[in-house]
Amino acid sequence: MLFQVQMDVRIPHDLPAEKADALKKAERERAQDLQRTGTWRHLWRHAGRYANTSIFEVGGAQELHDILSTLPLFPFMEISVTPLCRHPSSIHDDDR
Amino acid sequence: MLFQVQMDVRIPHDLPAEKADALKKAERERAQDLQRTGTWRHLWRHAGRYANTSIFEVGGAQELHDILSTLPLFPFMEISVTPLCRHPSSIHDDDR
Amino acid sequence: MLFQVQMDVRIPHDLPAEKADALKKAERERAQDLQRTGTWRHLWRHAGRYANTSIFEVGGAQELHDILSTLPLFPFMEISVTPLCRHPSSIHDDDR
Amino acid sequence: MLFQVQMDVRIPHDLPAEKADALKKAERERAQDLQRTGTWRHLWRHAGRYANTSIFEVGGAQELHDILSTLPLFPFMEISVTPLCRHPSSIHDDDR
Amino acid sequence: MLFQVQMDVRIPHDLPAEKADALKKAERERAQDLQRTGTWRHLWRHAGRYANTSIFEVGGAQELHDILSTLPLFPFMEISVTPLCRHPSSIHDDDR
Amino acid sequence: MLFQVQMDVRIPHDLPAEKADALKKAERERAQDLQRTGTWRHLWRHAGRYANTSIFEVGGAQELHDILSTLPLFPFMEISVTPLCRHPSSIHDDDR
Amino acid sequence: MLFQVQMDVRIPHDLPAEKADALKKAERERAQDLQRTGTWRHLWRHAGRYANTSIFEVGGAQELHDILSTLPLFPFMEISVTPLCRHPSSIHDDDR
Amino acid sequence: MLFQVQMDVRIPHDLPAEKADALKKAERERAQDLQRTGTWRHLWRHAGRYANTSIFEVGGAQELHDILSTLPLFPFMEISVTPLCRHPSSIHDDDR
Amino acid sequence: MLFQVQMDVRIPHDLPAEKADALKKAERERAQDLQRTGTWRHLWRHAGRYANTSIFEVGGAQELHDILSTLPLFPFMEISVTPLCRHPSSIHDDDR
Amino acid sequence: MLFQVQMDVRIPHDLPAEKADALKKAERERAQDLQRTGTWRHLWRHAGRYANTSIFEVGGAQELHDILSTLPLFPFMEISVTPLCRHPSSIHDDDR
Repeated sequence: MLFQVQMDVRIPHDLPAEKADALKKAERERAQDLQRTGTWRHLWRHAGRYANTSIFEVGGAQELHDILSTLPLFPFMEISVTPLCRHPSSIHDDDR
Repeated sequence: MLFQVQMDVRIPHDLPAEKADALKKAERERAQDLQRTGTWRHLWRHAGRYANTSIFEVGGAQELHDILSTLPLFPFMEISVTPLCRHPSSIHDDDR
Repeated sequence: MLFQVQMDVRIPHDLPAEKADALKKAERERAQDLQRTGTWRHLWRHAGRYANTSIFEVGGAQELHDILSTLPLFPFMEISVTPLCRHPSSIHDDDR
Repeated sequence: MLFQVQMDVRIPHDLPAEKADALKKAERERAQDLQRTGTWRHLWRHAGRYANTSIFEVGGAQELHDILSTLPLFPFMEISVTPLCRHPSSIHDDDR
Repeated sequence: MLFQVQMDVRIPHDLPAEKADALKKAERERAQDLQRTGTWRHLWRHAGRYANTSIFEVGGAQELHDILSTLPLFPFMEISVTPLCRHPSSIHDDDR
Repeated sequence: MLFQVQMDVRIPHDLPAEKADALKKAERERAQDLQRTGTWRHLWRHAGRYANTSIFEVGGAQELHDILSTLPLFPFMEISVTPLCRHPSSIHDDDR
Repeated sequence: MLFQVQMDVRIPHDLPAEKADALKKAERERAQDLQRTGTWRHLWRHAGRYANTSIFEVGGAQELHDILSTLPLFPFMEISVTPLCRHPSSIHDDDR
Repeated sequence: MLFQVQMDVRIPHDLPAEKADALKKAERERAQDLQRTGTWRHLWRHAGRYANTSIFEVGGAQELHDILSTLPLFPFMEISVTPLCRHPSSIHDDDR
Repeated sequence: MLFQVQMDVRIPHDLPAEKADALKKAERERAQDLQRTGTWRHLWRHAGRYANTSIFEVGGAQELHDILSTLPLFPFMEISVTPLCRHPSSIHDDDR
Repeated sequence: MLFQVQMDVRIPHDLPAEKADALKKAERERAQDLQRTGTWRHLWRHAGRYANTSIFEVGGAQELHDILSTLPLFPFMEISVTPLCRHPSSIHDDDR
């Protein structure tokens, strides 16, 4: 099942730089692991903003929550979730 | 270049049914043509709503506008456009 | 899988009364059928407004869309969808 | 009487971790007590967000306020309240 | 139990004047009946706008809905409902 | 003259507890004084939220401002003001 | 007493032109009468928009409502009202 | 003096096609005349939307209003205006 | 040329009181100087809020910016600017 | 390719003044470099606000992101991006 997720990252300016860097590094590793397993299907940056649009393929909403809520930057992200389904005009096999 | 496009369709209730049907049929054919050429890369329905998230791969903003503004349902759609670029943590070749 | 759905109904004042009545009657029958099969798990009216909060239990987003988009009043509803999952503090077996 | 309550939790990043943990533990215990007494009828997490939708069955608005305002995380929650009533199409005995 | 209700009235300009007048007259009579029985406790006009703030004292959300949804102008009103309770600093007996 | 005032209180979590308590105590005393003189005509808590709806009867906007801007919690409140007048359908003598 | 009023005019495109013209002419005459009596103290157009900011000096909210609600274009205006009072830094005698 | 103007065009679907076409043709001619005189300094389409961002150089707000309010499509446009001035970091002579 | 300016002041609670007082005193002096020269034509407080509506008469947007951006409280104000022009129905000489 | 970018700058009041000054100086130098190379085509201040409208001419969204995300003040800016294309009524060669 597919979910569109938008993440806007807002790191407080008084968070120590080392802590922020460690979180970003851990976030990157976690994101790449999830891409390798096929769960994090797409990941695009919004041009000019500290934000992304992601497509997740998961078994359901529970798995999605378990993934998102354990992302290292989760406490600093504003997240919106849109459940997707097949569009009747789509011809792409992977858009479902 | 990639653009994320959200289309919310609002067909007025007093539009004659035959006209609405003809527009929807033409829209579907146009959407499928653009998918076959690779321009309309992804097309997902928002579950429960007459709306979609689409990913377009075009030469630039001009080509995107030429495509969207000639969609048969364009006059009845509220459209938002988000320019995308490669995310530094992405490992997918097609996310750029 | 559970989805929270909010439906705000806005019937145009120039829709013929007989047509509106027929749609409402068909909507009611469909809603009750879906409640009997266990798909439409909860249905509450918002006090003082032509709106409801519903909880659907479906196989996934596709099934949710197929149900909502064929509701008789769908063309006159503004719909928002929130995917739900188990809350770690919940003790109710049916809240998942 | 039934109320739908949405709680969005925002814990400040400079709140000491021990204090945050103690608040979350107390919140969980209080939530489970209220579920056992039947007051907190439903509790669902919003997938991917630190937020929930809850259904409370209380004697009235005063009892609802007394409960919500004494939740350990109350000072860190943005809360919206929607009074519910029976939907004329509902067939479920417990949706009222 | 007390509810604060805000009603914004928007009568379509193409509704025949006689129909609009009849609705307004019926609305007024209904409003005054409900004031006489003590259900519609307060009714204030927003200065300069076709809108009001009302305070209803009812047995619960169901009674509130039955009243509001049968108001003659209900189909042309945008309504928001806020459940009220006693303020700990209030000294007025009728503010509960 | 009547004004409807909505106050949403947001006390910063890093305000020392003693200071917050002193402000709340002073606020309560001031609110009760103003109720006794008839200026603060109504005061209702929004169920489940740190917010209230109040009705003030004052000589004019200047008096309203002098009162609100000297409330002990004023620096921590988001305030909206709606001037009220008699509703043509009102039969209550005190709704003006 | 002073009130700031913003009026956004939205005349439906299917209102007959003669009716619209008659309303605008009547509106203009009424506006000028009220300026001559000193009630409509200021009237500025928002550059590039069919909207204005006005300052009214009236005895109270009731008089303001009686004036605004009888303006010929009232049914086609979205109105917001802000009660004003003397600013402690103002040195102008007429800003109160 | 420079003003940034955003125009969102919304032509009602029941406006006769000939009338809409005539308005668009007249709008185009007027826009080009104003560009030739140097008043309408820039004109960009928002990719994928029936909207534009324009930069006007005029003597003041009055001239801006006289121009915008006489555009043929003015009754069907939602307009927002932002007054601009020289940015202290700008090195372009024409950005003032 | 006339501009309507709305200023909402939000002074952080952890700004030292002496600094806040000094800023307010300097702001007041600057505001009164600008009123004496005729630049700050009107200054009204929003009743019940730390906000004002002001009318500035300046040579253009540049002068407006130079004034506003050097106000002592500028870093703590949320500002919105509306360019004004003569209303065709205005009869006041100073409303232009 | 052209992008319209709006930047709203919000520098936290507790950022040390030397750090803020150094960031602003570096921002200014970077902005002027990018103007000299022709990438930052236009840069206008919003009158009365710490905000600007900019027009960038870049090879695509990736280049835009690389530029914006490395601006010294990027962590303190709220940014919105609008992709532009040639307007069919434009006669200016540089509006594309």
